[in-house]
Amino acid sequence: MFRDRVRMPSLLDKVMSAAEAAALIEDGMTVGMSGFTRAGEAKAVPTALAERARRQPLRISLMTGASLGNDLDKQLTEAGVLARRMPFQVDSTLRKAINAGEVMFIDQHLSETVEQLRNHQLKLPDIAVIEAVAITEQGHIVPTTSVGNSASFAIFAKKVIVEINTAHNPNLEGLHDIYIPTYRPTRTPIPLVKADDRIGSTAIPIDPAKIVAIVHTEQADSPSTVLPPDDETQAIANHLIDFFKREVDAGRMGKNLGPLQAGIGSIANAVMCGLIESPFEDLTMYSEVLQDSTFDLIDAGKLRFASGSSITLSPRRNADVFGNLERYKDKLVLRPQEISNHPEVVRRLGIIGINTALEFDIYGNVNSTHVGGTRMMNGIGGSGDFARNAHLAVFVTKSIAKGGSISSVVPMVSHVDHTEHDVDILVTEIGLADLRGLAPRERARAIIDNCVHPSYRDALNSYFEAACKRGGHTPHILREAMAWHINLEENGHMLAAG
Amino acid sequence: MFRDRVRMPSLLDKVMSAAEAAALIEDGMTVGMSGFTRAGEAKAVPTALAERARRQPLRISLMTGASLGNDLDKQLTEAGVLARRMPFQVDSTLRKAINAGEVMFIDQHLSETVEQLRNHQLKLPDIAVIEAVAITEQGHIVPTTSVGNSASFAIFAKKVIVEINTAHNPNLEGLHDIYIPTYRPTRTPIPLVKADDRIGSTAIPIDPAKIVAIVHTEQADSPSTVLPPDDETQAIANHLIDFFKREVDAGRMGKNLGPLQAGIGSIANAVMCGLIESPFEDLTMYSEVLQDSTFDLIDAGKLRFASGSSITLSPRRNADVFGNLERYKDKLVLRPQEISNHPEVVRRLGIIGINTALEFDIYGNVNSTHVGGTRMMNGIGGSGDFARNAHLAVFVTKSIAKGGSISSVVPMVSHVDHTEHDVDILVTEIGLADLRGLAPRERARAIIDNCVHPSYRDALNSYFEAACKRGGHTPHILREAMAWHINLEENGHMLAAG
Repeated sequence: MFRDRVRMPSLLDKVMSAAEAAALIEDGMTVGMSGFTRAGEAKAVPTALAERARRQPLRISLMTGASLGNDLDKQLTEAGVLARRMPFQVDSTLRKAINAGEVMFIDQHLSETVEQLRNHQLKLPDIAVIEAVAITEQGHIVPTTSVGNSASFAIFAKKVIVEINTAHNPNLEGLHDIYIPTYRPTRTPIPLVKADDRIGSTAIPIDPAKIVAIVHTEQADSPSTVLPPDDETQAIANHLIDFFKREVDAGRMGKNLGPLQAGIGSIANAVMCGLIESPFEDLTMYSEVLQDSTFDLIDAGKLRFASGSSITLSPRRNADVFGNLERYKDKLVLRPQEISNHPEVVRRLGIIGINTALEFDIYGNVNSTHVGGTRMMNGIGGSGDFARNAHLAVFVTKSIAKGGSISSVVPMVSHVDHTEHDVDILVTEIGLADLRGLAPRERARAIIDNCVHPSYRDALNSYFEAACKRGGHTPHILREAMAWHINLEENGHMLAAG
Repeated sequence: MFRDRVRMPSLLDKVMSAAEAAALIEDGMTVGMSGFTRAGEAKAVPTALAERARRQPLRISLMTGASLGNDLDKQLTEAGVLARRMPFQVDSTLRKAINAGEVMFIDQHLSETVEQLRNHQLKLPDIAVIEAVAITEQGHIVPTTSVGNSASFAIFAKKVIVEINTAHNPNLEGLHDIYIPTYRPTRTPIPLVKADDRIGSTAIPIDPAKIVAIVHTEQADSPSTVLPPDDETQAIANHLIDFFKREVDAGRMGKNLGPLQAGIGSIANAVMCGLIESPFEDLTMYSEVLQDSTFDLIDAGKLRFASGSSITLSPRRNADVFGNLERYKDKLVLRPQEISNHPEVVRRLGIIGINTALEFDIYGNVNSTHVGGTRMMNGIGGSGDFARNAHLAVFVTKSIAKGGSISSVVPMVSHVDHTEHDVDILVTEIGLADLRGLAPRERARAIIDNCVHPSYRDALNSYFEAACKRGGHTPHILREAMAWHINLEENGHMLAAG
């Protein structure tokens, strides 16, 4: 069965063990690996590489699509393999190493990595390691549950290692749409005008002579870690759906809303689940990751089509979706993340982008990444790709965290990932602030009145009023702007001054 | 001569005085006016409107392309006309009113205003006031020295007032290329693939029945306020040109560099002037404003073509360029600012975007707008439209200001307009930091070593080293991050603690 999946027979000579393939990766190399939101990452070779590094130290620069599953970033970090890592991660061990300054992490807009490679602004991968369902008769690579940056990595790398993973349904073939923008200065428009357009090929076209190793694996993707909706996430979903209803009533959107994007994570997933009971119909998604809610919406007859770069499911959904792929296949496409997140396409389609904030401030600047302005959580991911060019840029978060010692709404964010220019709608379980067309002082009023937890509202009002008395387009008191974060750091509560 | 310019004879019935036309603007209206970087603004009607408001108070919401000349924002502010203003301004009287909270200013990416109008996320203009060279036989409007948002304002407004300005050379007709994106969800790609492509019409196509008034004016645009290069701006230009040479030598750019964008102002203008003596050839510009340097480069045989949204010249250049327009006309095009700044086009063409920073921090976040995090200078303008999607996002500034009491490089910027994700190259007269592919700690090293004024280098090093000891992906000490700004505010110098 494994050998059947290598449909160019001459390539069977390249079959080897994961350890043998990992030996092709040399100290100091730049390596591009498949994997996006814990889906479709190469599994056996990085594991073998970590094992080898424990005996024989080596350090590499590792690029992926986004996050890896199966504890691979943990293993590679613990084995000291990672000198540099980009453009996204979610692993707690790697996170510690990044924050200790031991791994140089380059946090990027997910649409931009391969653009920078294409223009030689980043070092091209010496070698690519790509998980595949199959290799075609032409020697082209059929990805598995994600496309991510795999296509460009394979095209740019001098050598390619393919992991044929027989744990994946071979019927995944045909799901992918591989389109690579042409080189500047003769680049032409991306010919995608609807979420369900197919503009490329179903496999990654490379010269098969570059395939230096083929490794057989049979290991599942890690399940998603998304939590089921709770009272707060349900309230967030309800506020947003009520807002959508008002937009439809006002004639600003149709009943199919427009293509939806939802960031990874429990809150965005809950919002999407909330659409099941909504009056909206004929929905489409143009997103990066397709989560449980995507398939719940398809099953409910609400979602007509979903475009993404990966599929990441909970154990509940996994066997059902991948075991019955034919039920969904004509409603899905997986694209390179450069295309799923491309500013040109996001602006053209008029996407509703729903992403999670770590904190936001009274003027609507959003911090998606840095705890206390300093410590990296995961990375900006695709949130900037979508928020900047979306028809509606929505950010969601619970109003408080850590039992109330943290307010997600603060005087001034400690780190800015999305400026007030790029943020239209903010939602917490308390309510929704519609910031469109408002000046900063008006934005502050809308945010404080609608989104802040009651236990922090008076303090925010005091700050805002005192700042306004001092004047300014965006009134702040610099001596106090970060006081809440400093209180938290020093005294364990944002309002507990030392 | 004036009447010859109204080439649809039936419209001559609509000729009236500026005061009569201004009377069509009612209290509470939203008004869209032409004008971009002090070029091509309607002049007589806003002046008459200010005059009327001094007798009979009224307040409007005013949208333009960008900044107005001829002290119009000053007159309108002093007459109390402006309740709301967007998306950009440069007037000191208006600035004061904005910072006092008297005028609600909505600071926007310049490509986005008409997109938000088109989607009814902002209130459509009740009336548009557009300066024109002529009205065609079809009743279409030929703009003057800028296009800005004029086309969409005229298309969206129920009523249109046209100011025929006979001070402008009628030969401006033919210079413009009016392209309006189609409505979602059936929007198609913008068919522009080279800086010199023409994709639209030479006049603004509207139903002539909407033209409710035609006013004759004969008043020049205000001259640009750009200062000639000085030692520091020359040093900035030299650093950047040396960097471009290295990029060409490394094969990352051709000798024509790629389409250039330069923000308005003395520093960016000086950088462009520096290209006259450079080895680069066959240059093109895809920019928003065409300044003196554009025409100096054309005259030097360096610049083959320039695309912009406006032409703003010094007295030195003004008569020469507009008096000899036939010499330049086949090398120029003026587009709607939505197209000159469009993310889709900026990303496709691979623009080198050169914009001015107010300050930047050791991690490469840029503040373009807010003094002390609070007081608005002008607005973000097009800098974000270009920086996000540019091939190279360059920000330039002098390393110190106010005789050295201000460092333009600070521990943490007091306001973020461009996050570190969107900033590739930083240049001061001290040197250039190439941040591509660097993690935050590496960015800090490059910035401190290359861009900081010597009088601030030790202090920045101390901050950075102390922050690194505390850890974090982007090390900061929140208690000290804003201390320089607080010192400046309280003691008049960034390093003079109270």
